[in-house]
Amino acid sequence: MPQRGARSASGDGMRRIYMDHAATTPVDAEVLKAMRPYFSEKFGNASSLHGFGQEARKALENSRITISGVIGAQPDEMVFTSGGTESDNLAIRGVAMSKGRGHIITSRIEHHAVLHTCQQLEKAGFGVTYLPVDRNGFVSPLDVENAIRKDTILATIMHANNEIGTIEPIGEIGRICRDNGVLFHTDAVQSFGKVPIDVNKMNIDMLSASAHKLYGPKGVGALYVRSGIDIVPQNTGGGHEKGKRSGTENVAGIVGFAKAALLAAEHMEKRASHEKRLRGMLIKGLKEIPNTWLNGHPEKRLPNNVNVCFSGIEGESLIIHMDMKGIAASTGSACSSKSLEPSHVLVAIGLKHKDAHGSLRLSLGKENTMDDVRYVTEAVPGIVENLRKISPFGRS
Amino acid sequence: MPQRGARSASGDGMRRIYMDHAATTPVDAEVLKAMRPYFSEKFGNASSLHGFGQEARKALENSRITISGVIGAQPDEMVFTSGGTESDNLAIRGVAMSKGRGHIITSRIEHHAVLHTCQQLEKAGFGVTYLPVDRNGFVSPLDVENAIRKDTILATIMHANNEIGTIEPIGEIGRICRDNGVLFHTDAVQSFGKVPIDVNKMNIDMLSASAHKLYGPKGVGALYVRSGIDIVPQNTGGGHEKGKRSGTENVAGIVGFAKAALLAAEHMEKRASHEKRLRGMLIKGLKEIPNTWLNGHPEKRLPNNVNVCFSGIEGESLIIHMDMKGIAASTGSACSSKSLEPSHVLVAIGLKHKDAHGSLRLSLGKENTMDDVRYVTEAVPGIVENLRKISPFGRS
Repeated sequence: MPQRGARSASGDGMRRIYMDHAATTPVDAEVLKAMRPYFSEKFGNASSLHGFGQEARKALENSRITISGVIGAQPDEMVFTSGGTESDNLAIRGVAMSKGRGHIITSRIEHHAVLHTCQQLEKAGFGVTYLPVDRNGFVSPLDVENAIRKDTILATIMHANNEIGTIEPIGEIGRICRDNGVLFHTDAVQSFGKVPIDVNKMNIDMLSASAHKLYGPKGVGALYVRSGIDIVPQNTGGGHEKGKRSGTENVAGIVGFAKAALLAAEHMEKRASHEKRLRGMLIKGLKEIPNTWLNGHPEKRLPNNVNVCFSGIEGESLIIHMDMKGIAASTGSACSSKSLEPSHVLVAIGLKHKDAHGSLRLSLGKENTMDDVRYVTEAVPGIVENLRKISPFGRS
Repeated sequence: MPQRGARSASGDGMRRIYMDHAATTPVDAEVLKAMRPYFSEKFGNASSLHGFGQEARKALENSRITISGVIGAQPDEMVFTSGGTESDNLAIRGVAMSKGRGHIITSRIEHHAVLHTCQQLEKAGFGVTYLPVDRNGFVSPLDVENAIRKDTILATIMHANNEIGTIEPIGEIGRICRDNGVLFHTDAVQSFGKVPIDVNKMNIDMLSASAHKLYGPKGVGALYVRSGIDIVPQNTGGGHEKGKRSGTENVAGIVGFAKAALLAAEHMEKRASHEKRLRGMLIKGLKEIPNTWLNGHPEKRLPNNVNVCFSGIEGESLIIHMDMKGIAASTGSACSSKSLEPSHVLVAIGLKHKDAHGSLRLSLGKENTMDDVRYVTEAVPGIVENLRKISPFGRS
């Protein structure tokens, strides 16, 4: 499958290796091809009565069928949004506003789209329990069960963590929520299309997904909302998406999302085994650097996720030095890359603040090659060594 | 400028004339060309520290400079959103949540993105005054002044109406709001890039715009927020857009929006004079049909808007019969095209319910030709005549 080991975006001839697929991915050529007609030819507004509108409506509804199929949902249970963040906000605030009051269960390692929304609701009078996680980042289903109160309206626990890749036991959590009459939402932005999901078998009531994490375009996402669940719309207006999310539908983007989801579902195993192989090589290579450890579980993690700590160095410096060697990586979430706070995820799994600053996330993609991995495992040791020499933390 | 009189999306050889540019527009070839590299090559997440991220960030910030320049704003006063509806929601609910309580002034002819948001806030305890409009759809600045109370926190009056094209005296309204310490928001989704706007001269505090109304992509919009104004974010998460709107930025879409805005600004006069010429021909031709009148002001309207009523017929049937002749038009707002309610705008300007059902909106675009107009003015009289014969309303 992978033909091209290096990408050059600058055109200056420097080798460029992209290993930040958890932040975003390039739009697949087939995806862009599928989107293409919907910009300038089949450009109608899907709410218009005339032929141009109906053409757009048809593409929209076909996309809904495709995307819902990937997670075993019904087409009319999918609400298209502008992305994962909006989906999380719509799910959580949508339920909260529908119920008016109550208690929400979440975890300490959620994406900020979930955490900050919960914090905002807490200020508005809702109760929120932020569950701890273990050393590997696992939320305990028993903790979820114990946290349920009479007034609990929602549990929102992510499917796979965006920083350390840990895959949560959401099937068990879903079962507990269902048995206790608590709605269960999961942020599946990182796992959708990478790991099998069945909303019925896993008792998921709401699920957030985003196109640009799986070779689709930015600015498009979806929220699965189980039939019968009432959420208050966060964008009010023309009543699009059956009143759950107003705004002219981004037809080209949604068509691209559907194509990307279809390709991801079709090639899930192949992509995962390819990425797992590279992941193993990367982890093995990087762990040869002294005072280095892997964050998250060795196996129960996203196939494309590597997250390591090099004690005594500062993650951002590492990223910048890697970038100078043409390697695109991350310290954790791209969303908080400008923050000086240590990662809330790494703190939650028990790392000391200084170690939580020294993390490196490498997230693989379908076009990465063994050659890419070799280049990275050869480049990083020298960078780490140099940074440790000048580190204010000193050698630990 | 216009070379092509007809568009064929079906490929069946039938002439297809698109006159529904107020609902949406095709993406301009130059716009798509500008967007193209940001899908698969310069695809970085604008929040990432590495080169791919910085490349995306640069495109994003350059787009912000371009778009803010079109309305005389500063780049850091622009918040990118998923479209006009989200911009309206963010402005209105963002101010309301920031203030916590108070009174809002709006008009009866606003887009549903404004009206439904105000209605939701009304249920939450905010006071809302829905100002009437005159026969031409004008809001009276004096009415705005008289409606201001001690607790008024916001006035939101659209720049140009999406159904009848009336251009409101927002400069005067802005002045009154400023003098009274009331924030002023305007929904400029239909006017942005078509009519000159200067947020400083017009005393506009917040302004909503959307890309797909001006030959840009769907799923992208912006909210101008004057520096120093506090709005509560409606999408919480990674803190993008200076904390005002979280979510990975839709870089390709935003680049397309900027290109579309630039082209619209550069060609504003040329496009407007072309459209006004066709508008005049259309109005003249259609008014030759008996019992027909123009809705909205003959001059103070969007250059591309025609809205006429044919008494005694049902607008949706008209649209369907026109579609059968290859003409794409609308009864009013695309967003409510499936509703059986008469247009709230036409009711507000004083039309009887049965007449408000008989409206036709033709919204011209830069590629429409005199030949298109001739085709339409020749086709419509026969359709109207036939529909009147079978109308349940009978001849009026």
